[in-house]
Amino acid sequence: MVTPTRLPASGEFIQVPCGEVVTEAGVHIPDVQLRLYAFYDAAKGDNDYPDFSAGPVPGLPVEQRPIILIEHALTGDGNATDWWGGMVGPSKPIDTTRYLVLCANVLGGCQGSTGPCSPHPDGKAWGSRFPGLSIRDMVVAEKQMLDALGIERVHAVIGASMGGARALEWTLMYPEMVATALPIAVSARASAWQIGLQSSQIRFIEADPHWHGGDYYGTGETPSHGMGQARRIAHLTYRGELEVDERFGVEAQHGENPYGPYRDPGQRFAVESYLDRQAEKLVERFDAGSYVVLTDALNRHDVGRGRGGMNAALGSSQVPTMVAGVDTDILYPFHQQEHLSRNLGDFIGLSKITSPTGHDGFLTEERQTAQVLQKFLTKAYLLDGEDSAS
Amino acid sequence: MVTPTRLPASGEFIQVPCGEVVTEAGVHIPDVQLRLYAFYDAAKGDNDYPDFSAGPVPGLPVEQRPIILIEHALTGDGNATDWWGGMVGPSKPIDTTRYLVLCANVLGGCQGSTGPCSPHPDGKAWGSRFPGLSIRDMVVAEKQMLDALGIERVHAVIGASMGGARALEWTLMYPEMVATALPIAVSARASAWQIGLQSSQIRFIEADPHWHGGDYYGTGETPSHGMGQARRIAHLTYRGELEVDERFGVEAQHGENPYGPYRDPGQRFAVESYLDRQAEKLVERFDAGSYVVLTDALNRHDVGRGRGGMNAALGSSQVPTMVAGVDTDILYPFHQQEHLSRNLGDFIGLSKITSPTGHDGFLTEERQTAQVLQKFLTKAYLLDGEDSAS
Repeated sequence: MVTPTRLPASGEFIQVPCGEVVTEAGVHIPDVQLRLYAFYDAAKGDNDYPDFSAGPVPGLPVEQRPIILIEHALTGDGNATDWWGGMVGPSKPIDTTRYLVLCANVLGGCQGSTGPCSPHPDGKAWGSRFPGLSIRDMVVAEKQMLDALGIERVHAVIGASMGGARALEWTLMYPEMVATALPIAVSARASAWQIGLQSSQIRFIEADPHWHGGDYYGTGETPSHGMGQARRIAHLTYRGELEVDERFGVEAQHGENPYGPYRDPGQRFAVESYLDRQAEKLVERFDAGSYVVLTDALNRHDVGRGRGGMNAALGSSQVPTMVAGVDTDILYPFHQQEHLSRNLGDFIGLSKITSPTGHDGFLTEERQTAQVLQKFLTKAYLLDGEDSAS
Repeated sequence: MVTPTRLPASGEFIQVPCGEVVTEAGVHIPDVQLRLYAFYDAAKGDNDYPDFSAGPVPGLPVEQRPIILIEHALTGDGNATDWWGGMVGPSKPIDTTRYLVLCANVLGGCQGSTGPCSPHPDGKAWGSRFPGLSIRDMVVAEKQMLDALGIERVHAVIGASMGGARALEWTLMYPEMVATALPIAVSARASAWQIGLQSSQIRFIEADPHWHGGDYYGTGETPSHGMGQARRIAHLTYRGELEVDERFGVEAQHGENPYGPYRDPGQRFAVESYLDRQAEKLVERFDAGSYVVLTDALNRHDVGRGRGGMNAALGSSQVPTMVAGVDTDILYPFHQQEHLSRNLGDFIGLSKITSPTGHDGFLTEERQTAQVLQKFLTKAYLLDGEDSAS
């Protein structure tokens, strides 16, 4: 039962005190806060709304609306309309006149929730004292957040990439609280190839002398070189080679000549300049400590741990779950979503987004992603029905 | 016309003086040497040989045998029986009782041919004075090597990856010297995605303080950290995620626990340990200066440069060319070989190696690669026929 007075104004956030979180590996994190955004709009007129064959009525009072919990990806945050603006809003596939939409910055993050750059009880940053997290630890914190808000059940949990990993864990850890789920572009566990790439990225940061063993806060230095190295590689796993090649090909950066007589780092291809910008942008907006903790959590992602193995765990799922992926994703190849489809205990559909963009297709292919969401929400309504209002 | 007395003993190498090479970008490299291996065996008995439907007679005198020029990949070398032992030898697909097989270490390499670690005329290492190379510059050096040996024509040029890029350039630069060609797991030009990954690797090395701007030779320091970073990433583009995951999954390295309470670089997944070994092995056997020059040359690979564009260049090819690739290759995806098949001027076939291994499938899938080579050599014999003996 949601208590609207405890919610932030629509599009705003509150800091939700979630109490102590005990990690899977046994570390106690006291006084966890998650930064929670809520999105809910009043209905304007019927003509503004797509004619879904089934779904909740626009303009229900907020406390009667089905709740959708959105789980963001690695460097995303709780402000879902910022990074998924085409999907979340009035008359959008996740229609904020029909649903109460919640999205919290993840535990371990750096955008308002407790993480390595947050103050430890002693007043200094957590830094290297912040524990290693699993995806499950993140979900524990979110469960405690819903408890604090008085929310006992959500209509749907939806997330892609690291958000999809949390959505899967929600269905296995707290099935009584989740009516339906849609994990996108994710797998039942990290693959060794992902771990190889992701652990390399972590090492790039750890090898930067400005990292100071994870305690760079307050030193006046930031491991921006290592973060940049990590981001260059990560970005190329998020973006498909077809899309990158269509944009940049073998073009030289304007005014530079990478075909000159001597190798010269100042003479770049256009794609190098693009990656430079990606690296700079992430360094500006994201904390290296969070990047390490969240990337390590992706390495630890394994629904099978302690549950008799991956397929046994998936088979035990009792939450109706639809799965989606992108055909050209090299980070979470589509065969991983096919694997989920074969093994989930209550599987309700598999959708493929076709795109040159790779993993990020769930962000870039708006029309197809909207179709996936609409199909899922229609199914969710039929399955969860009138009981969906909390 | 090969002059056998100028050849090394079979399985041995000689240093071939190739004169001055002038690079595409205008730098003169004096006194280039290439390290050349030759492989040719006497026939033993007819029963030892596979029954090819067509092909040269085993045991022809060396000077009458068709010449096959093998082009090695980035960190390969002239000793083709070392890295392609299943493909080259008596009764092997590239049968050394039927062919005279030549394979030279590439210009810019570090295994006997002139490169950044070779002595400059002033006696010190070339280091940062070594020019940027294109794939074409490498082929120029090899052409001058054949000239020095008195070889006017080869029956076939065969190479994979960077070797495939050289094979393609051979057909466009010196078609009169090449009867047939088989480029494997390569493309008409670098893709922006490759350039992004490859230029990142170069930067990892250049950012290592032990690189000394390319002049680390004689300092007692080597940029092994940067090389290791580069190799970790490169290796994951050579090896398919299916194969890596089959081998390592989410297993912890023996005696270590990556699932512990705190992120700890000493507590590794098995795949991290594997990548550590790959990095260490390359650092031991390969020069960082060569790695930078050759990787930069891959970035510069573009058959279309100065030839009216990629497809015009391919269309102008008059050398019968067969193409092969690996279905799971993410570095040179199979659609790139399909592109070659649609555009090559004298295209004679496309073969796909099916493998979980990715790019390295041409090394690991011996049975399929042998089939590709046998099919190609049969076609080459039918096309080049009796004229094939130089």
